[in-house]
Amino acid sequence: MSGDHLKRLLERHKATVEAAMARILPPCPDSVSVIDEAMRYSLFAGGKRLRPGLLLAVGEALGGELDNLLPAACAIEMIHSYSLIHDDLPCMDDDDLRRGIPTCHVKFGEGMATLAGDALSNAAFQVIAQETRDQDLVAPLVLELSTAAGTGGMIGGQVLDILSEGAAPDIEVVREIHRMKTGALFVASMRLGAIAARADADQLARITDFGRKIGLAFQIMDDILDLVADAETLGKTAGKDAEQGKMTYPAAIGIEASRREARGLIEEARLLLDGLDPQGDLDALAGFIYARLN
Amino acid sequence: MSGDHLKRLLERHKATVEAAMARILPPCPDSVSVIDEAMRYSLFAGGKRLRPGLLLAVGEALGGELDNLLPAACAIEMIHSYSLIHDDLPCMDDDDLRRGIPTCHVKFGEGMATLAGDALSNAAFQVIAQETRDQDLVAPLVLELSTAAGTGGMIGGQVLDILSEGAAPDIEVVREIHRMKTGALFVASMRLGAIAARADADQLARITDFGRKIGLAFQIMDDILDLVADAETLGKTAGKDAEQGKMTYPAAIGIEASRREARGLIEEARLLLDGLDPQGDLDALAGFIYARLN
Repeated sequence: MSGDHLKRLLERHKATVEAAMARILPPCPDSVSVIDEAMRYSLFAGGKRLRPGLLLAVGEALGGELDNLLPAACAIEMIHSYSLIHDDLPCMDDDDLRRGIPTCHVKFGEGMATLAGDALSNAAFQVIAQETRDQDLVAPLVLELSTAAGTGGMIGGQVLDILSEGAAPDIEVVREIHRMKTGALFVASMRLGAIAARADADQLARITDFGRKIGLAFQIMDDILDLVADAETLGKTAGKDAEQGKMTYPAAIGIEASRREARGLIEEARLLLDGLDPQGDLDALAGFIYARLN
Repeated sequence: MSGDHLKRLLERHKATVEAAMARILPPCPDSVSVIDEAMRYSLFAGGKRLRPGLLLAVGEALGGELDNLLPAACAIEMIHSYSLIHDDLPCMDDDDLRRGIPTCHVKFGEGMATLAGDALSNAAFQVIAQETRDQDLVAPLVLELSTAAGTGGMIGGQVLDILSEGAAPDIEVVREIHRMKTGALFVASMRLGAIAARADADQLARITDFGRKIGLAFQIMDDILDLVADAETLGKTAGKDAEQGKMTYPAAIGIEASRREARGLIEEARLLLDGLDPQGDLDALAGFIYARLN
C-alpha cells in the first residue's frame, strides 16, 4: 500500500466529514452563540478524523451509502471531541494545550467548556436521528454509539484512568483502560460503518475483531509518542502521562516491548480483512499506525 | 380535582419510573462501579419525577402503551438529573446541597461528578434505543429529546444563565432563560408522551402549547420558593439565586406580580385540555403547581 493512497484516502474522508460537521451541527440561537463558538473551536481544532475515517472506510468497503454513513461519522467525531474537552478540564487531566492550541476551558472558561462538551455529546445523537437517510438505521446506530461511549466503554475508561492515577504500573490495568477508553470508540467506528452499510453477521464479527486490534495498537502508539515526542511534534503538552503517574504501556512493559505488541496486533488485524477491503483502504489505515510506531 | 387523585397519580407514576430506571440503567463493569454508584446517588436522590410524570400522563391520556412510554420517561429524568449534577459543579452554580443531601461532586469529587453527568446523558439515548418496544419510534423520540436538551433548549438556557450573572434584572432575559433552561424539557416531556402515543398533529400542537405554559409557571414557582422558603423546606441552599445575582422573576417584577403571571399561565393551560385529558390527570398536575404558588 503506497503512502500516497493512504494520504489521499485520509484527506478525502477528512474533507467530507469536516464539511458535513460544519453543515449539520445543530443551529444555535444568537443569544448563546458563544457555546456554538466553543463547540466549533474544539471540533475544528485540527483532529486527524481517524474515527470517522475508519467508519467511512468500513462503510464504503461494505457498499454502504454516504447518506447513511456520514451522520454517524460526524457523530462519533463529536463524541470523541466532547470526551477530550471534559478530559482536559482541571478536575480531570488538567491540560492547557491540545493539538497545539489552548484547551477549551483555557479559552472559554470551565463552565462553558463543560457545557460545550455536554452539547457535543447531545448533538451526536441529534445528528444521527435527524440526518440518517434510512430512519430504520437510527435505533441500531444510537444503541451502538451510546453503548460504546458509556460506562462499559469510553466513560468507564475515563473512570478507570482517574482511579488508577498514582498506582504502580500494571499491564492488566493498562490493557483494560485502553480497551475501554480508546478501544471502545475505535471498535464502534468500524461497527457503525458496518451497521450503516447493513453488514451481515460474519462481516460484523470480523470488523469488530479488526477494530479491537487496531484500537489497542493506536493507543500503544499514542502512549509511546507521549513519552518520546516533544510538545511541538505532538501538539499537546509532552510527558504529561509520566508526570501524572498515568498507567501506560511503556510504563508497564517498556518502549520496545510496547512497539512489538502494537506491531503484532496490526499484523493480526490485517489478516482479518480478506474479502472485506476491496480498495485496500482499511489496510492503508492499519499501515498508518504501523508507520508511526517507528 | 381532589388532592387525593393528584397524590395517587404522582405516586403511581413515580413508583413506575423509579422501578424502571433502577432496572434499565445500563450495566456497568465491576472495575468502575463507583460511576454507577455516583449516577444512582443523584438519580435516586428523591426527585419528584414531575417530567416523567407529565410524559406518562400525556401518553396515557392519548392511549399510548407503557412499553413505548416508559423508556422515554426514564430518559428525560436521566437528562434532568445530569443537568443538575453539572449545574451544581464549582465551575457552574457551585452548590453543595441538593434535595437535602450533598451534591454529587461533594460526595464523589468533581471529576467523577462530571463523568456521572456525562454517563447519565449518554444513557438516556441508550435506554430509548434499547428499550422502546416499537423501534420506529426511536428516531423521533431521540430527535425530540436531543433537540430539547441541546443548545436551542436546556444547554442554551444554562449558557444564558452563566452569561447573565451579575447583570441588572431584565424580565425579557428572565423569560428567555426559563423558556430554554426549564421550559424546553417540560415541553419535551409532554411532546415525548404524545409522540410515543402516536398523537395526531392537532393533539401534538395543543400539548406543546400546554407544556410551554405549565413549564414557565413551574419555573416562576421555583424562583419564588427559592426566595421565600428556608433550606429545610426546599431541600437545597436557600437564597442562592439572589446571592449570586441570578435573573429571576421575583427579582425582575416582584413576588406578587410573579404569582399573578404564573396563575394566569396555568389558567390558560387548563383551557387547552378539552378532550385531551379523560382522567383529569393533566389538570391535576397543573393544579399541583397552582397550589404551591400560595
